[in-house]
Amino acid sequence: MEIITSRTNDKVRLIRLLQEQRKIRERERLFVVEGTRLVEEAAAAGLKARMILHDDHLGPRERSALNRLAAAGGEAIEVTPEILKYCSDTETPAGVLAVLDWPELPPPEPLEWVVVADGITNPGNLGSLLRAADAFGVQLVVLAPGCVDAFNPKVVRGGMGAHLRLPIRMLDWRAIGALLAGFQIWLAEAREGKSVEAVDWDGRTALILGGEAAGPGEPARALAAGSVHIPMSGKIESLNAAVAGGILLYEISRKRNVSTKSTKSTES
Amino acid sequence: MEIITSRTNDKVRLIRLLQEQRKIRERERLFVVEGTRLVEEAAAAGLKARMILHDDHLGPRERSALNRLAAAGGEAIEVTPEILKYCSDTETPAGVLAVLDWPELPPPEPLEWVVVADGITNPGNLGSLLRAADAFGVQLVVLAPGCVDAFNPKVVRGGMGAHLRLPIRMLDWRAIGALLAGFQIWLAEAREGKSVEAVDWDGRTALILGGEAAGPGEPARALAAGSVHIPMSGKIESLNAAVAGGILLYEISRKRNVSTKSTKSTES
Repeated sequence: MEIITSRTNDKVRLIRLLQEQRKIRERERLFVVEGTRLVEEAAAAGLKARMILHDDHLGPRERSALNRLAAAGGEAIEVTPEILKYCSDTETPAGVLAVLDWPELPPPEPLEWVVVADGITNPGNLGSLLRAADAFGVQLVVLAPGCVDAFNPKVVRGGMGAHLRLPIRMLDWRAIGALLAGFQIWLAEAREGKSVEAVDWDGRTALILGGEAAGPGEPARALAAGSVHIPMSGKIESLNAAVAGGILLYEISRKRNVSTKSTKSTES
Repeated sequence: MEIITSRTNDKVRLIRLLQEQRKIRERERLFVVEGTRLVEEAAAAGLKARMILHDDHLGPRERSALNRLAAAGGEAIEVTPEILKYCSDTETPAGVLAVLDWPELPPPEPLEWVVVADGITNPGNLGSLLRAADAFGVQLVVLAPGCVDAFNPKVVRGGMGAHLRLPIRMLDWRAIGALLAGFQIWLAEAREGKSVEAVDWDGRTALILGGEAAGPGEPARALAAGSVHIPMSGKIESLNAAVAGGILLYEISRKRNVSTKSTKSTES
């Protein structure tokens, strides 16, 4: 079997460009996952891999995931450790990476609980938010214009597999407005509006989370019915954007679950 | 007035070392804050500055903060923009930075609500946690051995002023055990123990937050009465360490406040 050793190989160049440039990710509708756990999860989720890159230190877990992705049509490609490092976004590459089609997972029907990220530019923050949305059962995350893209390698790494399970879309504000017709739309905003505890979170609900520095933009304000904040007891009212988002998703998802459960017990 | 232009100046070298090396920060018991807002807050909090570095583009806000810190004994030092950049930990230095004594703010008496960070090595995560602890009225944050140090420049930046308001201590486990004698001590741990909602958070309470990869260590387990987790509705139960910590501090602080309020209303 041929081993790729050159940085000028077309496949190697494509992967490098996918790691570096949003416009290439958007043109190809591909992204890269790195490391044993994410490649295993991609295989288990039945995602379609275009390529699986590995060096000659392939353990049994990596081998099994690779075989599964290859059986579904992915091309397994052996490269030198130097080329694997060149294709990796991390300092210490994990021995295997996969180039995947964007999952574009279908949101559940009926769609009832949506989060919109507005102007979140820090990839670590967006990754942590996607991870929290996945953990708390958000049904769809929409990235508005001005966010870092969902398939940026740092966002993928921070998401810890959220990309493989959670429906995510990048839409413009017109499409967001159309999607959320009939939704109760709330804007998260420090010190403004109602406490998150004082709002009725039942029914078709969307929460717009703004970026750290600028807060929510004008199109977000135009859509929202009102603002919600996190009640705080300390001397300042300011949180990291991912921490604030995580707290709101925890609180709102909990309220929605309690309400679902009590409805169910009434029905039974 | 003399303007410092050389990287080999003793003061410039000290600041550079304070930005780079934990052992220098610990030996000198000094740290660096950068930018208008933090320098203003340091002045307003009455903290003691050793030096205030600035270039010749000093606006009225920076001038006012500098005068206040200088009146309290800080040395104002003008440097070239190149030297200011050399002394900065950021790509785009903000025109002013201050070298401050470690605040070592006294915790309130009686001490009742303590957070212990155990093995949190990511500076962005620790900074976000300190910011959340400040926002939710935690009375003292203790950093156990194995954490990144509180005065690492990235932790200071992520803390957004928490260092100037929140008592923080770096202690070994023996000292932590002595400090927390008589406290109810809980360990935050994904999927283990009780739900955070099911615990009585009244009285003298400490929460130990473990790091992302390793979770809580043996000394933490030996101190704790039990584990608490965040209930989740989604497909995975995994959150970024700062997000998980923020949710727990939100939930516990809220429960403690409700309890304080109801006690007060019973008394009145």
